[in-house]
Amino acid sequence: MSETASEVASGTALPPPVIILVAPQLGENIGQSARAMANFGLASLRLVAPRDGWPSASALAAASGARHVVENAEVFPSLEAAIADLHYLVATTARIREMVKPILSPETAVKQIAAKAASGQRCGVLFGRERSGLENDEVALADALIIVPVNPAFASLNLAQAVLLVGYEWRKFVAGASLGRATQFDGPAAEGLYLNKSQPATREELFAFFQHLESELGAAGFFKTDDKRSSMIRNMRNLFGRAALTEQEVRTLRGIIVALAGLRRSRNRVE
Amino acid sequence: MSETASEVASGTALPPPVIILVAPQLGENIGQSARAMANFGLASLRLVAPRDGWPSASALAAASGARHVVENAEVFPSLEAAIADLHYLVATTARIREMVKPILSPETAVKQIAAKAASGQRCGVLFGRERSGLENDEVALADALIIVPVNPAFASLNLAQAVLLVGYEWRKFVAGASLGRATQFDGPAAEGLYLNKSQPATREELFAFFQHLESELGAAGFFKTDDKRSSMIRNMRNLFGRAALTEQEVRTLRGIIVALAGLRRSRNRVE
Repeated sequence: MSETASEVASGTALPPPVIILVAPQLGENIGQSARAMANFGLASLRLVAPRDGWPSASALAAASGARHVVENAEVFPSLEAAIADLHYLVATTARIREMVKPILSPETAVKQIAAKAASGQRCGVLFGRERSGLENDEVALADALIIVPVNPAFASLNLAQAVLLVGYEWRKFVAGASLGRATQFDGPAAEGLYLNKSQPATREELFAFFQHLESELGAAGFFKTDDKRSSMIRNMRNLFGRAALTEQEVRTLRGIIVALAGLRRSRNRVE
Repeated sequence: MSETASEVASGTALPPPVIILVAPQLGENIGQSARAMANFGLASLRLVAPRDGWPSASALAAASGARHVVENAEVFPSLEAAIADLHYLVATTARIREMVKPILSPETAVKQIAAKAASGQRCGVLFGRERSGLENDEVALADALIIVPVNPAFASLNLAQAVLLVGYEWRKFVAGASLGRATQFDGPAAEGLYLNKSQPATREELFAFFQHLESELGAAGFFKTDDKRSSMIRNMRNLFGRAALTEQEVRTLRGIIVALAGLRRSRNRVE
C-alpha cells in the first residue's frame, strides 16, 4: 500500500465495492453494467453462472470503452464462492423482503461501504437476474438491502441502471470526501470500534459456521419439515448475518455448538 | 390548482421538470429515456426533431411499461419552440463549456428546479444527441449546466442514463422533502421498517435467553475457568445484543439451545 495518509483520509484511496451479478441473462446487460461501472470508477466485476456462458461477445460489444471491466470479470459457479472473501455485502432488491435487515438507500449504502472499506473490509454489492431479481436465499446472505426510491407505479429498473445508480452514489461520495465534505459517517462509524480487536469474519468462515449449526440442528431433529427448514435457515442466517460477526465470535459460536451438542465427547467415545 | 399549501411546502405537489431530448438519433434511446422518467415519476417528454421521425415503433418497444410517456411526447421542429413556455432551463453536458454559466451537479440542479417550481415556474432539462451532445448555441439557451461527476477516464454516459440520474435526484429530493428529511431511507428510520412483522425483544426476554444459554453452557462444561467465564459471557451478550433481536428470533435461539442440548444428552445416553 503506497497511498498517503491524506489520500486515505480523503477517501480517494478507498477501494470501490465489488459488483456481483447473479445469473445475469443477457451479455448485453453485463456489458452495459460494465460501462456503468467504468463511468464511476468501479472496476471489479464478478459473475455468478451467467446464463449464456462466458466469455460473451455481446458483453464485450455492449461494453465498448469498458472492455477492460468485462475482460477482467471473474466467473464463479455459485454465489457462495463469489462472495467468500468479502466482509460486507449489500443486496439490491426492488421490494422489501420479509427479512430483518437494514434497508438502505443507495446513498446510505455507499456511506456504509465506505466506512467498512476504510477499516480494511472487502465490500460487495449484489444484483439479481434481469427478470426475477435475487431469490430469498441469496438475499439472506447479505448484511443489508438497497432499495432505490423509485416510483412505486413503475418500479422496474434494468440491471445496468441499478448498477449505474450505485456507482453514481459511490463516486459522489468519494468526490465529496476528497473535497472535504460529507465525510462524517452516521452510525456505522461506531461499528468500526469493535473491529480493532478482531477482524470481521469472511463469508467463508460464516458459511462454515452456518453449515456446522445447520447440520447439528438437523441431527437434533430441529427442523420439523423440509418445508419449514429452508425458511428457518434463512431466518437464522439473517439473524447472525446482522450481528456482523468477527472471526473470534464465529469461533466462539462454533465452540458453543460443540459444547451444547456434545459432539466432541461422543466422537471421542466412538473412536 | 387544488393542492394545499402544506402539499406545496412538502414538495409532493411540485411539478417535475420537462425532459427535452434534442435531435435524438435512435428510437430505442427515446424509449429507454421514457422508462427512466417513469421510474422516477417524470412524465412530460419533448422531442426536438427526432432523426428517424415520429411516432417510432422502436421507441414504443423500448419503453415497455412506460408507453404512456412515449405516446404523450410532444414533438417540436426547433429547440426554441420546444422551450418557449419554460421559465428555467438546465442543459446537461459532458464537458465544461467556455460559457459563463453556473455548473451544477444533478443534485444541486434538482434543488434549483424545485425552488423555481415552488414559485410557479415551469422548468426543463435539456439532453443532447447521443453521439455529439448539445451544440454551443443550444447550451447558450440554458440558465445553467448539469455535469454528472463521472470518471474522467471514461466519461460517456448514454442518453437514457443521463435522464435516469436526473430523474433519480428529482425523486430523492421530492421524497426527502415530503418526509422533511434529506433522503428517504437515511438513518435509523430505515431500521424501523423491518420491525413491523415482529416486535423487538424486550430486555426481559433477552436476559431470559442469556440465562438459558449460559446455564446450558455451564452444564456442558463450556466455561473452563471462572476467570474466563465472565468475559466470555460479556462477549456473547455483546454479540447477540448487536443483532437487535426480535421476539421471534429469541424464541428461535432458545429452540436451538433446547435442540442442541437435547442432542448432547441423547449422544451421552447412546454410549
